[in-house]
Amino acid sequence: MKILIINPNSDPEMTRLIQDAADRYAKGEFKVVCKSTPGAPKFIETYEDGVKAAPGMIGLLRENEAEYDGFIIACHADVNLDVLKEISDKPVVGIGEASMKIASMLGHRFSVISENDHSIPNKEALVHKYHLRNVLASVRAPAEDDLDGEDKDKYIKVGAAAIKEDKAEVLVLGCAGMTGLDKPLQEALNVPVLDGIVCAMMIAEGLARYGLGTSKARRYNPDYP
Amino acid sequence: MKILIINPNSDPEMTRLIQDAADRYAKGEFKVVCKSTPGAPKFIETYEDGVKAAPGMIGLLRENEAEYDGFIIACHADVNLDVLKEISDKPVVGIGEASMKIASMLGHRFSVISENDHSIPNKEALVHKYHLRNVLASVRAPAEDDLDGEDKDKYIKVGAAAIKEDKAEVLVLGCAGMTGLDKPLQEALNVPVLDGIVCAMMIAEGLARYGLGTSKARRYNPDYP
Amino acid sequence: MKILIINPNSDPEMTRLIQDAADRYAKGEFKVVCKSTPGAPKFIETYEDGVKAAPGMIGLLRENEAEYDGFIIACHADVNLDVLKEISDKPVVGIGEASMKIASMLGHRFSVISENDHSIPNKEALVHKYHLRNVLASVRAPAEDDLDGEDKDKYIKVGAAAIKEDKAEVLVLGCAGMTGLDKPLQEALNVPVLDGIVCAMMIAEGLARYGLGTSKARRYNPDYP
Amino acid sequence: MKILIINPNSDPEMTRLIQDAADRYAKGEFKVVCKSTPGAPKFIETYEDGVKAAPGMIGLLRENEAEYDGFIIACHADVNLDVLKEISDKPVVGIGEASMKIASMLGHRFSVISENDHSIPNKEALVHKYHLRNVLASVRAPAEDDLDGEDKDKYIKVGAAAIKEDKAEVLVLGCAGMTGLDKPLQEALNVPVLDGIVCAMMIAEGLARYGLGTSKARRYNPDYP
Amino acid sequence: MKILIINPNSDPEMTRLIQDAADRYAKGEFKVVCKSTPGAPKFIETYEDGVKAAPGMIGLLRENEAEYDGFIIACHADVNLDVLKEISDKPVVGIGEASMKIASMLGHRFSVISENDHSIPNKEALVHKYHLRNVLASVRAPAEDDLDGEDKDKYIKVGAAAIKEDKAEVLVLGCAGMTGLDKPLQEALNVPVLDGIVCAMMIAEGLARYGLGTSKARRYNPDYP
Amino acid sequence: MKILIINPNSDPEMTRLIQDAADRYAKGEFKVVCKSTPGAPKFIETYEDGVKAAPGMIGLLRENEAEYDGFIIACHADVNLDVLKEISDKPVVGIGEASMKIASMLGHRFSVISENDHSIPNKEALVHKYHLRNVLASVRAPAEDDLDGEDKDKYIKVGAAAIKEDKAEVLVLGCAGMTGLDKPLQEALNVPVLDGIVCAMMIAEGLARYGLGTSKARRYNPDYP
Repeated sequence: MKILIINPNSDPEMTRLIQDAADRYAKGEFKVVCKSTPGAPKFIETYEDGVKAAPGMIGLLRENEAEYDGFIIACHADVNLDVLKEISDKPVVGIGEASMKIASMLGHRFSVISENDHSIPNKEALVHKYHLRNVLASVRAPAEDDLDGEDKDKYIKVGAAAIKEDKAEVLVLGCAGMTGLDKPLQEALNVPVLDGIVCAMMIAEGLARYGLGTSKARRYNPDYP
Repeated sequence: MKILIINPNSDPEMTRLIQDAADRYAKGEFKVVCKSTPGAPKFIETYEDGVKAAPGMIGLLRENEAEYDGFIIACHADVNLDVLKEISDKPVVGIGEASMKIASMLGHRFSVISENDHSIPNKEALVHKYHLRNVLASVRAPAEDDLDGEDKDKYIKVGAAAIKEDKAEVLVLGCAGMTGLDKPLQEALNVPVLDGIVCAMMIAEGLARYGLGTSKARRYNPDYP
Repeated sequence: MKILIINPNSDPEMTRLIQDAADRYAKGEFKVVCKSTPGAPKFIETYEDGVKAAPGMIGLLRENEAEYDGFIIACHADVNLDVLKEISDKPVVGIGEASMKIASMLGHRFSVISENDHSIPNKEALVHKYHLRNVLASVRAPAEDDLDGEDKDKYIKVGAAAIKEDKAEVLVLGCAGMTGLDKPLQEALNVPVLDGIVCAMMIAEGLARYGLGTSKARRYNPDYP
Repeated sequence: MKILIINPNSDPEMTRLIQDAADRYAKGEFKVVCKSTPGAPKFIETYEDGVKAAPGMIGLLRENEAEYDGFIIACHADVNLDVLKEISDKPVVGIGEASMKIASMLGHRFSVISENDHSIPNKEALVHKYHLRNVLASVRAPAEDDLDGEDKDKYIKVGAAAIKEDKAEVLVLGCAGMTGLDKPLQEALNVPVLDGIVCAMMIAEGLARYGLGTSKARRYNPDYP
Repeated sequence: MKILIINPNSDPEMTRLIQDAADRYAKGEFKVVCKSTPGAPKFIETYEDGVKAAPGMIGLLRENEAEYDGFIIACHADVNLDVLKEISDKPVVGIGEASMKIASMLGHRFSVISENDHSIPNKEALVHKYHLRNVLASVRAPAEDDLDGEDKDKYIKVGAAAIKEDKAEVLVLGCAGMTGLDKPLQEALNVPVLDGIVCAMMIAEGLARYGLGTSKARRYNPDYP
Repeated sequence: MKILIINPNSDPEMTRLIQDAADRYAKGEFKVVCKSTPGAPKFIETYEDGVKAAPGMIGLLRENEAEYDGFIIACHADVNLDVLKEISDKPVVGIGEASMKIASMLGHRFSVISENDHSIPNKEALVHKYHLRNVLASVRAPAEDDLDGEDKDKYIKVGAAAIKEDKAEVLVLGCAGMTGLDKPLQEALNVPVLDGIVCAMMIAEGLARYGLGTSKARRYNPDYP
């Protein structure tokens, strides 16, 4: 069993953090490798960044398709998920989709913790894409004054507001770069806090083990008659 | 890692089939045990059957809570899922919820294969409960004339109609008793076919490995202040 | 015309209050009797409480089915409503469903007044079950600091906030135990305030008079071919 | 207790039929009077017909408001319901709204039997207005070839198709002019068949008895500050 | 190309303002005329006002149908839009529908600026009618204390709150009487601000140029077989 | 006034057809130019095709932004619409979004005519993205046996079925390559048939004339603080 995590950006530090989180979950029982996307922007913040990352992501998947059993896109915006699902028969899992659908199994409604105000509508658009609006409590970002604070502290504040004011029962980390904050937040806030990297591992490893991939019935089949 | 599968009915044959499917997925890498529910009806077909199974299911979970790391309800109607989520801090996964949410990650829309016409509205009510109506292609059962046919044959016929007429891209087996038909149907129909037992294993094992259970923030916390 | 109100809990005081409210509405023009559920918990606060009340509720309905023309479940969570609809051909009405559907005929949106924060998500799940989310202004409970206050006072405060902040135009009492507060709140707040007991009486008496009960077409027919 | 039924058209024969249905339900226990609308078209078939009926309907309500306790609009399109709710503090009930909301309490989904193809989209727009689309099985009209057939026969055929093909569990008569067909259809089809006249009586009589009318909180208050 | 704007009220001052806005958009390149509705109330504030305006609006359209190529209803509540669509084959455009649908193309979600609290639910009902609820950020009116303020100032305050608190990205002027405030608000708030008059011109002129009108397939065809 | 139509593919024949349709609408009263996308695939049929077209589309817009007043993406899948909205302050209009939103103003529900079965789910995903599912009658493609037929004939057959069976009242051409078939289909089928090219012209020209572009409040602002 080998899972490839595609980090859609080209930041080696984030790739390292993702690899760490994946290893903690895999516990050496199956193999998981995280790779940065060649030619991608340093971070994925805009629609244009996603477009720029696409060729590298497609390349990474094609080069590694034979060797790996499942693929993960490690950006909570699930950039280029549809195209990667289309070009492979093996499981391709976005950390946004996986984390939010698993969140919906653990409590009444979930909130997504977002890095800043800008990504709130984009995240809402993603929630809508996956038909999850009715199980969403809110997408919340730190107040402008808090943006420069320590990550852990400012996101605990965001999570606490989501629980109290929006009645969230589960929290989802809204960015691959937040990986590792799940357990500290969970300890502080006393509700499940989900790291998309881990959630996607769960689904990708499970699907690969079960022998399943994206349906080629119609939508994701480029060669459909 | 130990997962307990609660078969809400008291049919030992079904318990055995579920155990087999679970073992095939676990491959000996983690432990999984399926138990029948004491005092439950032989099969769960009506709302009253679900009510009758409740005390035994609650009992099973309580007796085994310390020993196991996660729990699965092996009835596609997810009978008594809310109450089991409420009484435990550990993950409790319904095969209906798990299979349909995973199905939504593998293709445009999924269809549920149902045993007969009677359970179609009940299944639709479940789909609504989980806010999945927009990703449902259909719930389909064999035509009355086909009800006495061979299981594999009649469900292949149902699945083929769902793919062609309802444009389903993924199929979900709508009853724990259909376990084992996933691969034969998949081979015949060429789309992913999901057995809820396996899907719930994926989620339960993953959540337990990740150290997560049902949120006790509010809805599923019986001792909420 | 005889209506049986099933109080799903075993608190005689609540049974008495419900009987009073029912009598005020019936004005002696038809017969209505409220009975406590044998073997039920004192109050219904959790999913497990609902499960525990089920056998007694089923028993009550079966013993009285021949004698009565319609049945009401006097718990605003409509516990075990599906199973009672299933086992009887006569009308079975939940006070939650009746009150919220009638509320939707009296104004733009309604709010449900809930006893405490814990039951807000459960109530929202019920609202979703009945497809009423779009006509719901909010589910509101007293602030933590107000929980020990006089019932009438604290619920007037809740209702006033629902009207002003959530733009509710109609209020629904979210618990059978609030029976009798409808008119005092209505006087104070100047919007319709609905007691589910009365609303269910309206529907149950009307359906019985019209000769209608739950459809046995499929979902609620335990003997469906 | 006195209920006024406003027949929005000027057909005396239909007024007589509505009066009969209302009397059968009231059984002499409360007073109910049906009046034709002065100046209205003979039948209400188009949006313009509805507009033409408005002044007469407003006049009827205003002249009779002091004397009656509740008002019913006896056209299944609920023409001018919003304006009548606005101008009165007493209950005003549309037979479309009442019948479809009560239908939703009696089974999984309901179908509306419509006179002809033309009114299907209009009826769907009404269903949408009341947020009932998720509990609607279908709106169905006789096939073109059947339009000249006997009412009872052709609507039984429509109802049977709705039950079998659209999986309706409850049927609603989609026109005040179908009053009286409820019991014959119910006998033939074995599911609840609802006449909106009767359903509106249930709600109007119940609300008047309970002392409730349209909320004047905002939407239906012409004098809102 | 000649467009007729029907001002559903009888206020000549408002008719003049609407004519001005229309002329600014048309730039003399096509002809546009705004007429007050004979017999209509001075302003349209209630459902009854809408009903009273109907005969005059129908008359205006019928008298001018041969001469003009398209029609606009210049009231943001789109009063009597369905009936005017029904009686003409030419394009009939409501300023509410046009402005809100165009707003949905310019940003994530839009807010409607309403004159006062009373019209918030009515506007929400309109938003629901057009299936736009998911792209609505909010309907907002000035606080009670601000109602007597200068129009421009108080609506800038409303718009700023919609942008900041409801995360609106586009604003829609919720009343024909606000015409002319679009550019001042846009300058102050730095988001697109839409005047329904202009939006409806865009659609009406475009449809007429394209040779399209309301479909006579079924719903809006009074003579449907 | 100058509008640039970006044909996301590199087929000069299709660019010519689009230019013709645009010219017919513009009637020489404003300038419109259609350009093929350099480096794009010959046709856009898959998600990967869309990704491959992106750099050329972004380049085209950037090179022409100063000179043109509005931009149109001439592919009914609206490929890369979000990114083009993001990088420009001027109006950017997708022919999918424009045609379907205008269709919703002309009748009860619309159907989209699709080239083949493969694109049905993709089109449904687009409909969902724009929150238009409730006004969609269906997405329909020619039956497999008809795929080789004459375009006009086979799409008339599809449209007729959509009108009769799905109760569509308006038709939308689901591919830029169908441009020019609008009037022949409309003549044959007697309902409005919309060419997205023309619809997008209407919106783009109107917005440019009105001085409006994509909101830079948050979602489409790459430089958001």
